[in-house]
Amino acid sequence: MTIADRWLLPDGVEELLPPRAEKLENLRRRILDLYSLWGYKLVIPPLIEYLESLLVGSGQDLELQTFKLTDQLTGRLMGVRADITPQVARIDAHCLKNPISLKGSTSLDKSSSLKNKNPFIDHQEKIPARLCYAGSVLHAKPADLLASRTLLQTGIELYGHRGVDSDVEVINVMLDTMAAAECGKVLVNLGHVDILSGLLNETGLSETLRQELFELFQRKDVTGLETFVGQYVLDESLANMLSQLIQLSGEAQILEKAKQVLRAAPASVLAGIDELEKIVVGVKAYHQDADFYFDLCEMHSYNYHTGVVFSVFKAGSGEELAQGGRYDHIGEVFGRARPATGFSTDLLKLSKLADLSLDSIDAIFAPSVNDPSLRVAVRTLRKQGRRIVSSLAGDDTKPADLDCSHQLVKKNEKWIVVGLILNEGDSIESD
Amino acid sequence: MTIADRWLLPDGVEELLPPRAEKLENLRRRILDLYSLWGYKLVIPPLIEYLESLLVGSGQDLELQTFKLTDQLTGRLMGVRADITPQVARIDAHCLKNPISLKGSTSLDKSSSLKNKNPFIDHQEKIPARLCYAGSVLHAKPADLLASRTLLQTGIELYGHRGVDSDVEVINVMLDTMAAAECGKVLVNLGHVDILSGLLNETGLSETLRQELFELFQRKDVTGLETFVGQYVLDESLANMLSQLIQLSGEAQILEKAKQVLRAAPASVLAGIDELEKIVVGVKAYHQDADFYFDLCEMHSYNYHTGVVFSVFKAGSGEELAQGGRYDHIGEVFGRARPATGFSTDLLKLSKLADLSLDSIDAIFAPSVNDPSLRVAVRTLRKQGRRIVSSLAGDDTKPADLDCSHQLVKKNEKWIVVGLILNEGDSIESD
Repeated sequence: MTIADRWLLPDGVEELLPPRAEKLENLRRRILDLYSLWGYKLVIPPLIEYLESLLVGSGQDLELQTFKLTDQLTGRLMGVRADITPQVARIDAHCLKNPISLKGSTSLDKSSSLKNKNPFIDHQEKIPARLCYAGSVLHAKPADLLASRTLLQTGIELYGHRGVDSDVEVINVMLDTMAAAECGKVLVNLGHVDILSGLLNETGLSETLRQELFELFQRKDVTGLETFVGQYVLDESLANMLSQLIQLSGEAQILEKAKQVLRAAPASVLAGIDELEKIVVGVKAYHQDADFYFDLCEMHSYNYHTGVVFSVFKAGSGEELAQGGRYDHIGEVFGRARPATGFSTDLLKLSKLADLSLDSIDAIFAPSVNDPSLRVAVRTLRKQGRRIVSSLAGDDTKPADLDCSHQLVKKNEKWIVVGLILNEGDSIESD
Repeated sequence: MTIADRWLLPDGVEELLPPRAEKLENLRRRILDLYSLWGYKLVIPPLIEYLESLLVGSGQDLELQTFKLTDQLTGRLMGVRADITPQVARIDAHCLKNPISLKGSTSLDKSSSLKNKNPFIDHQEKIPARLCYAGSVLHAKPADLLASRTLLQTGIELYGHRGVDSDVEVINVMLDTMAAAECGKVLVNLGHVDILSGLLNETGLSETLRQELFELFQRKDVTGLETFVGQYVLDESLANMLSQLIQLSGEAQILEKAKQVLRAAPASVLAGIDELEKIVVGVKAYHQDADFYFDLCEMHSYNYHTGVVFSVFKAGSGEELAQGGRYDHIGEVFGRARPATGFSTDLLKLSKLADLSLDSIDAIFAPSVNDPSLRVAVRTLRKQGRRIVSSLAGDDTKPADLDCSHQLVKKNEKWIVVGLILNEGDSIESD
């Protein structure tokens, strides 16, 4: 490795320098504050866990995305998280069994938590839990050629409520997040797992063939589907519904069309469409100007979704900015299944789109002189929230070199802040 | 893995649940704001890099602490950072050669940066750069039995200035950090690499023997040292100085004693003692009440320090809360050596000591009724920075279940906020 490329970063690995880093930090604070106003409580799951815990309830995609490490203390396999959602599901399943954890102890106190029998569980099972997070995740492979492998995943999860109300809340928070990130006009993309899977089940095909059929839908391979259906799906009405389903994407009127096309479909399919209609109503009640796009054979990232799936796209560019959905079974593997819905986004990605103005404060240059009254002035100003950059003995820097717009100068025994454009600023007491 | 232990975390791997997570987030913001007031600019280096970049200038300790990963795109070895300081050194060496990066582009634009010849470099070489960071690091092994392996490393680095002034500034920021974290009375521990190494060089011993001697000092093995010195160090005065150096630790008067004991030592040793005296004066000028402890054979973590080394301890407990020092050569491997000094701390550790009060805002319970005027009220209140937690259709939660201290009730066609203790709150307009 030569000196020249020692600072090169691996592909898809990004770092933020000033002022972009400050911009990201501002965005991060703004968005965590937003979640807090919706009643979501912050959790900070660890970067690494045993692989089994990280991959619970999720499909092969997540495993392929996860960097593996060996725990030198136990020899067991650990992973660097590629997704935070399963960690938060573990916390919901675990915390409410150990309410003490909510009082701030860490998951390290295992013994106690294991025994812990909790009388309130039955009641608490019914109480929705709202949790939010913002943390680094790593992807072993970039999702696509241009994608990053170092993301700042941020999102919310809402546990304990079945039914569209909670999906509506999550989508509303997702839209508020996009607004807070100032990333312009967006489009909500809605789908429902039950629609496609409801029909797949009807086919009575083997798991292998069903998977094949599923992949045709994922690839939107219309002709491939025709051939497959012609060959394997004998029931004519079902065959017909499958062939039309692959085309069912577009704006609001698609739902009407779907109810026509799929009227003979099993109840679960029609119930899925019905849920989508209710969700649109609920979201529009809070975000009147929300725009929707429907993709009725949309399935789910990381295979853990079980109901409605949604995402937001930047209008025009079609770039996906956030995604989420309902995943009601993930808690089971932790011994406690609660209905769950949530969404997540990558703040690094958002911070690039976002045109956030930095409310950056002026920097005041302090000369390098050994004068106690200067130190008092500097300390006083910092207490007042002013930014002071000190010149250091021997460096011949000018205020501009240190990005300072003002400087401290002594005038009649008093240190005062003076603008570089030489308009005088407020004098401050040096005692 | 049974259901019962699926949520167990590996030893030394921690996660924060409410309210501790919120406490950490508050502390993180408070401390990054502090660095900003001192003129330090935030950088966000990546969690993973090629191993060669991560380990530059550092010794074997860091390599042993670093989790290794294989980059599936290139087959090259990467590491999960165990320390952020070398990354920030890379950024200083790299950015100022590519000022465009400072305008916010990422290190991904390599080609451009490689060619880039910059006329301002000569001047910029002399301009100190102040950088700060807060990010996760992983340790493959815990530093000690109780230590965490998942740290939130936070700190500052000051590049481009030789001489005690910059060390003084860094120590002052370190003390302000401890104050901001409200972790009580602390003690500054000072040492200087040149003192021990100056004497080691004088011995003229082989590298192996010198290392052996060095380790005796690290272990504070007084009798072992006696034997070694008697056997290998013929120069009586030098032997005498080495035997006394191992005892030279304690409060201020130690420096006086050292000047006596080491008066025959090479200039670099005496210059080291002199620097320590200057640093004490400089720090006391800003923190009058600062207390110091000196350990003159103190050496350096991760082997990259080259001058003064310092740390803060919690008074009484003796627990180390932060550490740093001068490391003037680390930039070389990136093609640009600049004098450098800095410190870092683990915010997770601090947040446990810190007794930060949560300035948490009231939560207001919103009933689950389909009333447009309620949605307007909720949106209005959130815009005003009030926290609203909505009941969801079908959940039979009471305000207290959702940690709400107030609730929204409708009175004469108006939604008003009412305290649960039934004292009426401010009415808010629903239009």
